Amino acid sequence: MEFLKLVDILGTVAFSISGVIAAMDKRLDMFGIFIIAFVTAMGGGTLRDILIGDTPVGWMHDPVYGVIVFISVVIGIVATSVIKRLQKTLLLFDSLGLGFFTILGLEKGLALGLDPAICIALGTITGCFGGVTRDIALNTIPLIFQKEIYATACIFGGVLYFLLLKTGLPVVPMNLICIAAIVIIRLVAVRYNWSLPNIYGKPKT
Amino acid sequence: MEFLKLVDILGTVAFSISGVIAAMDKRLDMFGIFIIAFVTAMGGGTLRDILIGDTPVGWMHDPVYGVIVFISVVIGIVATSVIKRLQKTLLLFDSLGLGFFTILGLEKGLALGLDPAICIALGTITGCFGGVTRDIALNTIPLIFQKEIYATACIFGGVLYFLLLKTGLPVVPMNLICIAAIVIIRLVAVRYNWSLPNIYGKPKT
Amino acid sequence: MEFLKLVDILGTVAFSISGVIAAMDKRLDMFGIFIIAFVTAMGGGTLRDILIGDTPVGWMHDPVYGVIVFISVVIGIVATSVIKRLQKTLLLFDSLGLGFFTILGLEKGLALGLDPAICIALGTITGCFGGVTRDIALNTIPLIFQKEIYATACIFGGVLYFLLLKTGLPVVPMNLICIAAIVIIRLVAVRYNWSLPNIYGKPKT
Repeated sequence: MEFLKLVDILGTVAFSISGVIAAMDKRLDMFGIFIIAFVTAMGGGTLRDILIGDTPVGWMHDPVYGVIVFISVVIGIVATSVIKRLQKTLLLFDSLGLGFFTILGLEKGLALGLDPAICIALGTITGCFGGVTRDIALNTIPLIFQKEIYATACIFGGVLYFLLLKTGLPVVPMNLICIAAIVIIRLVAVRYNWSLPNIYGKPKT
Repeated sequence: MEFLKLVDILGTVAFSISGVIAAMDKRLDMFGIFIIAFVTAMGGGTLRDILIGDTPVGWMHDPVYGVIVFISVVIGIVATSVIKRLQKTLLLFDSLGLGFFTILGLEKGLALGLDPAICIALGTITGCFGGVTRDIALNTIPLIFQKEIYATACIFGGVLYFLLLKTGLPVVPMNLICIAAIVIIRLVAVRYNWSLPNIYGKPKT
Repeated sequence: MEFLKLVDILGTVAFSISGVIAAMDKRLDMFGIFIIAFVTAMGGGTLRDILIGDTPVGWMHDPVYGVIVFISVVIGIVATSVIKRLQKTLLLFDSLGLGFFTILGLEKGLALGLDPAICIALGTITGCFGGVTRDIALNTIPLIFQKEIYATACIFGGVLYFLLLKTGLPVVPMNLICIAAIVIIRLVAVRYNWSLPNIYGKPKT
């Protein structure tokens, strides 16, 4: 479980930094950058907890998450150029976070006895909604609705989870396999620039 | 009650398809279209449940809503041109949904012993907030804040409900009368292009 | 406590009117203006209650808040030019509201036994999130993320609260001191056009 704790932290850092970069692109002040970073990292889990009524929501029980976001913001502001050179590392952390947050959300739904499809939706919300909130707060149409397969990776990982659940595999290896599947789909998708099939006749001009 | 179940489904289809059309206008990918359709159809009830603390929120108890939205999205994407020719039918379904969702929300408030004004607000939120979320997620100012009388129909229907409540009418006919009132106001408003009185000196240019 | 009740009302009026002005700038209709005013005045407390699970949320227990917003909207629409001449008075009311709502939110967190940092965050959310929702619904990047020190005043007031808590001061004078601190920081910041330090090399052009 130590490993999963580390993945949680690395994911939070990567999500926060994606918020910092987006907020600095819009030239927000330091407070705005912190809020956008916080929302990017915590928004998915917060919406999940609100939807299932698990309140006070997660980050309220442990100020350490706010501290991780704060440190990420400071690093992001002070070392912007370093951050930009570490894009590949950040993508890996971001993908690890995506996988971890998705499975965490899915298992919260499972513990409530919700339908598998709803559990997968909860996992996907946990993994993806932070970025959606970031984009809405920054007054842009969420990237994920336009050309990412971010959410598709979560859904695949979630379906795999329920397939593996029938095999009776213990929970820790099952978690690791599903997180790995999400990470791999995400990385391959970025590498080969995968997106969902185009349903529009001609390209947007 | 079979009739009300049908109205629920028709309303969900109509709300979903209004989401599909708005999302395709912004050229979102398939995932984005589904999410916008889902949010349009489920957003009002979801906000209502969150505000009153009835969690896990409604759609989490029954995956059938997700299935209805999904089928609506497939129809909307595959048969876009057919959909556009069915505008009058969709407007009728949309109005039925508006009426049904409003009364459903109002009665949830009533069951909690909330003040009539708050119950009417809850009903209006249930009927209207899905479209508001759709517009915010698509980066436009909600249509309903600008020139629709959508919400006004809900408020009239809600006031009528509390007037009829004093007559001791049984609940099913009362529901049907209030839903019908909302549908009629909505349809007449669209037909005659009604809007709230203009409070600005000169027209927006 | 009579005084705090008055501050609550004045703050609600000032927040509502800031919503009316922003909504009229975007030429919304009367319904849109009311919703934006309501969201500006009630959005912070609503998000706070949702995050901590204190539902039905605050304004649902007492229709008087809706009435105060409604009256503010009528005044704002009918007497727009008067309102614009009263900017200094409104700024004072707005600052009083900011202080009061912040301390109210902080104390709600304290009653739940949350960590001081989380309580300060809750207070800041209560004071500031209404304006954030207003700006997002009106399709602009929240002002507070760009050049205000609005939130900074709340955070200072919250820190002061926890410092005073150790002195054993009774709750009413402690509340008044913290609210006064927030009001003064806010007014001085507006007067001298304070903002957070610029972290970008050259000004935005």
